[in-house]
Amino acid sequence: MAKVSPLDSGKSFGGIPLSQLFPESKLGWRGYVEWEDHPERKRTASEILKTKKFTPIPEFQFVPLPQTNPVLVGHRWKEYHEALGLKSIVDFSWATVLKEKPGMIHLLDFPYNGETPRSELIKAKITDNKWHFVRNHGGVPDIDEGAYELEIGGLVNKPVKISLKELKDPSKFPQAEVTVTIQCSGTRRIEQIQLYPGDGDELINAPWGEGAIGTAVYRGVPLKKVLKIACGGILPEAKHLEFIGADTYFKKGNVYNYAVSVPWRKVRQNEEVLLAWEMNGKPLPKIHGFPLRAVVTGYIGARSAKWLYKINALAEPSLGPVQAAEYLYYNQQLGKQNVKMSNGFSIQGMPVSSAIIFPLDKQVVIHEGEIEVKGWSYSGDGNWVQRVEVSPDGGHVWYACAEEDMTEKHYHAWRLWSIRVPVNAQGWLEFCVRTWDSNNNTEPTFVRSAWNWDLHVTSSCHRVKIYSVNKSKPETAKRLAEIEAHGETFEPLTRPLEWELEDTQEYLQQMRKHPREPLD
Amino acid sequence: MAKVSPLDSGKSFGGIPLSQLFPESKLGWRGYVEWEDHPERKRTASEILKTKKFTPIPEFQFVPLPQTNPVLVGHRWKEYHEALGLKSIVDFSWATVLKEKPGMIHLLDFPYNGETPRSELIKAKITDNKWHFVRNHGGVPDIDEGAYELEIGGLVNKPVKISLKELKDPSKFPQAEVTVTIQCSGTRRIEQIQLYPGDGDELINAPWGEGAIGTAVYRGVPLKKVLKIACGGILPEAKHLEFIGADTYFKKGNVYNYAVSVPWRKVRQNEEVLLAWEMNGKPLPKIHGFPLRAVVTGYIGARSAKWLYKINALAEPSLGPVQAAEYLYYNQQLGKQNVKMSNGFSIQGMPVSSAIIFPLDKQVVIHEGEIEVKGWSYSGDGNWVQRVEVSPDGGHVWYACAEEDMTEKHYHAWRLWSIRVPVNAQGWLEFCVRTWDSNNNTEPTFVRSAWNWDLHVTSSCHRVKIYSVNKSKPETAKRLAEIEAHGETFEPLTRPLEWELEDTQEYLQQMRKHPREPLD
Repeated sequence: MAKVSPLDSGKSFGGIPLSQLFPESKLGWRGYVEWEDHPERKRTASEILKTKKFTPIPEFQFVPLPQTNPVLVGHRWKEYHEALGLKSIVDFSWATVLKEKPGMIHLLDFPYNGETPRSELIKAKITDNKWHFVRNHGGVPDIDEGAYELEIGGLVNKPVKISLKELKDPSKFPQAEVTVTIQCSGTRRIEQIQLYPGDGDELINAPWGEGAIGTAVYRGVPLKKVLKIACGGILPEAKHLEFIGADTYFKKGNVYNYAVSVPWRKVRQNEEVLLAWEMNGKPLPKIHGFPLRAVVTGYIGARSAKWLYKINALAEPSLGPVQAAEYLYYNQQLGKQNVKMSNGFSIQGMPVSSAIIFPLDKQVVIHEGEIEVKGWSYSGDGNWVQRVEVSPDGGHVWYACAEEDMTEKHYHAWRLWSIRVPVNAQGWLEFCVRTWDSNNNTEPTFVRSAWNWDLHVTSSCHRVKIYSVNKSKPETAKRLAEIEAHGETFEPLTRPLEWELEDTQEYLQQMRKHPREPLD
Repeated sequence: MAKVSPLDSGKSFGGIPLSQLFPESKLGWRGYVEWEDHPERKRTASEILKTKKFTPIPEFQFVPLPQTNPVLVGHRWKEYHEALGLKSIVDFSWATVLKEKPGMIHLLDFPYNGETPRSELIKAKITDNKWHFVRNHGGVPDIDEGAYELEIGGLVNKPVKISLKELKDPSKFPQAEVTVTIQCSGTRRIEQIQLYPGDGDELINAPWGEGAIGTAVYRGVPLKKVLKIACGGILPEAKHLEFIGADTYFKKGNVYNYAVSVPWRKVRQNEEVLLAWEMNGKPLPKIHGFPLRAVVTGYIGARSAKWLYKINALAEPSLGPVQAAEYLYYNQQLGKQNVKMSNGFSIQGMPVSSAIIFPLDKQVVIHEGEIEVKGWSYSGDGNWVQRVEVSPDGGHVWYACAEEDMTEKHYHAWRLWSIRVPVNAQGWLEFCVRTWDSNNNTEPTFVRSAWNWDLHVTSSCHRVKIYSVNKSKPETAKRLAEIEAHGETFEPLTRPLEWELEDTQEYLQQMRKHPREPLD
């Protein structure tokens, strides 16, 4: 191993230009560096990273989120790439965002994390490709379809390389189309952050709202079939299938290709793990993994590896940091003071969860005794949404959505729903939703019930604050008419009314009928 | 009444210079305009205000508070004064803040609202004059002590004017010294705002924390004695004593002198209503009402009128807007859509309340199984603090403060307290306090329990979030040592640790002992 040398203006290391140290590994695969097969590259990259200081992670948990778009800027992650001569990846990624996802809420510019605006989120059961959320862990590689090939190795009978053309040939591999909801384990994380700050991961645990979820019809081949047909099956000791993506991942000073794994038991369910090239009848967008990604139904989105170039059959779960050290679910006693890889459990299948999308949080709703509520509900790993209940009073009384007001059941997709809830009360109310899945699982009651240091899986009953103005009440109707007569509007709610709310004579009359203090 | 004329560059109205329209009413009383005795002035002022547009109230409830000091700027209220040619009041007020209260948290620059910094708040039972909170409703008048006189009229046997010299003459009026906690009904309002936005009053309902409370020893004469000795007593039909202050108050386009009232039943308790000129052995600071103020024990601070120049005995509560239209406590069904003067009740005596001052909200506390908690507890209207209880678990288990760890009882003052609470648990905990007063009254459980549109009297159990790091736990002690060995610090809490938290071999050993998934 070479001794640590100073970084020569960031352009070379130990006298060797960066471009030669970390070359693009295959022709036609721009932005892909192979790390896992090159331990010496990994060592050199770590040494380079050690010589540099990087911008600290921005503090956005103890302070309000910026009101900008992009909301957060991934300085540190950009600098990691730049330090290794990989700035072109950063540039190509953002250009891809602007081309493929211009209208998103850009939660983090790099690695790109984009959230679906609420108006697009529940428009239809299927999310349009340009509105589907994106949670990337590295830059977007730019891979030519013709140059693409998939390697399968590890504990299989016959390691192989398969071209995309072969994979797409239906005479070789049977194809499947599956309607799949993919959800980031960070969905609704903002609620955990607002309650208590947690882990400030170097990649940034993005402050997602309810829009880190989306549904698409994916076309591809079941991984099980590929393993059987192309590799002659897996060896008996193989228990996990590892997916390696062409993106570069960083963790505590070390460099990796993105790697995760899923159990063989999941893969053998055929359509539950697809190698997919099509999303809603179109080629995968680059930002979603073009030309090929894994689609693991009902699991945390992180397992559906993008830009998938290698699959390894393993006896144990992947040791890649995304699998071993990330996406762990900790008990509340565990935090910065004591978390380890081995004391969290791995988030794979997703629990039942839901969200109210309309009305929006803190919305003023003027109504006549009923408020329409709309949202999504989902349960992972083949469980479907059975019942959705909405409470207009913080969780005391619950109303169930009618089947007619819910989209149809799918094994691997959400249901959208709406309900008109009776509301007599005025002022600030807390509306909440809870969902029951096919196994009778339901959601934790409060955010604290399931708060965890890594801020994953905010599956507690989703709560929104609604300011109810019930104009079926005479006093309210009178005030609304008064506001209109003054050429004013009810909102902004906090804006004071400029005129006297009560005539002094009326006030005195009331006060003499019901004095402010006892008479004796 | 003159026809509305355009404002001549803001310097005159209807051809008359503003300085002649609204002259200072007495020699040696700078910044005092008499409005209540001059209905024609009030009408003219209203007309002038109608000709102008004023800066809207700043929105600070739906968005994060500025991190500035002053936190909020009272543009509108300054403009009201300027429109009437009273800008010198604005200037003198701020000069007085800088002289008398330089170190405060300036919540609102005009009318001045200043909060005591936490480090000064519970240093001692008596709050130093320079650290006592201030909630003014208008500018600070600048009154010469020698020119000062107090008028008493209304339903008394003999209306009088009394000079300050006479009032202070112990051979004429018996004096009293009373230890009094004065509390703004806005104390801890920030908790109500953070839960739900409420009324955006034109004066600004300041976003107070726990520091809108303070305790001082006031010297003065009981109002009861003055009424008896100077006025020969009140008439039988007199039920309320109205206090009028020399500051100018605005409400919905009209102009007033500050006016409030308290019941005769309160006044006749002798030391419970003082006319005070001394605060902690010193002359009243100008910002606290020099040369004379009312001190109404156990009532909302708003009744302790400053720059008190007139007292009227009335048959009914004052019709001044501060008494009739402000400081009302509304039911939760009442809000912008339907509040009136007559459907809220008047806040006079203050209920039992308390606050945790240390640890601070969101503080990380590294400890060995016990955490010290400190704060204040108070109950109004002659009730004293009997018992203080602290819960380290959101309100499930409560520990009582020892009498030795509380300051002594007073009829009209708070008690400061401290307690060491056993804490085994780690991570984010919710600590809360509740107090029981001498009538066995205690506090509502949650902010929502008593949330009200005008955001007054946040007397629910005060809750703070504490991140507990219990270093008596071996894994925690190990991590803290590791952090020290790396030359790092535990805080900021959200900063990721830069090194691997677990050796891969240790991880694998654990994972083989307790596999991530069942073996069959």
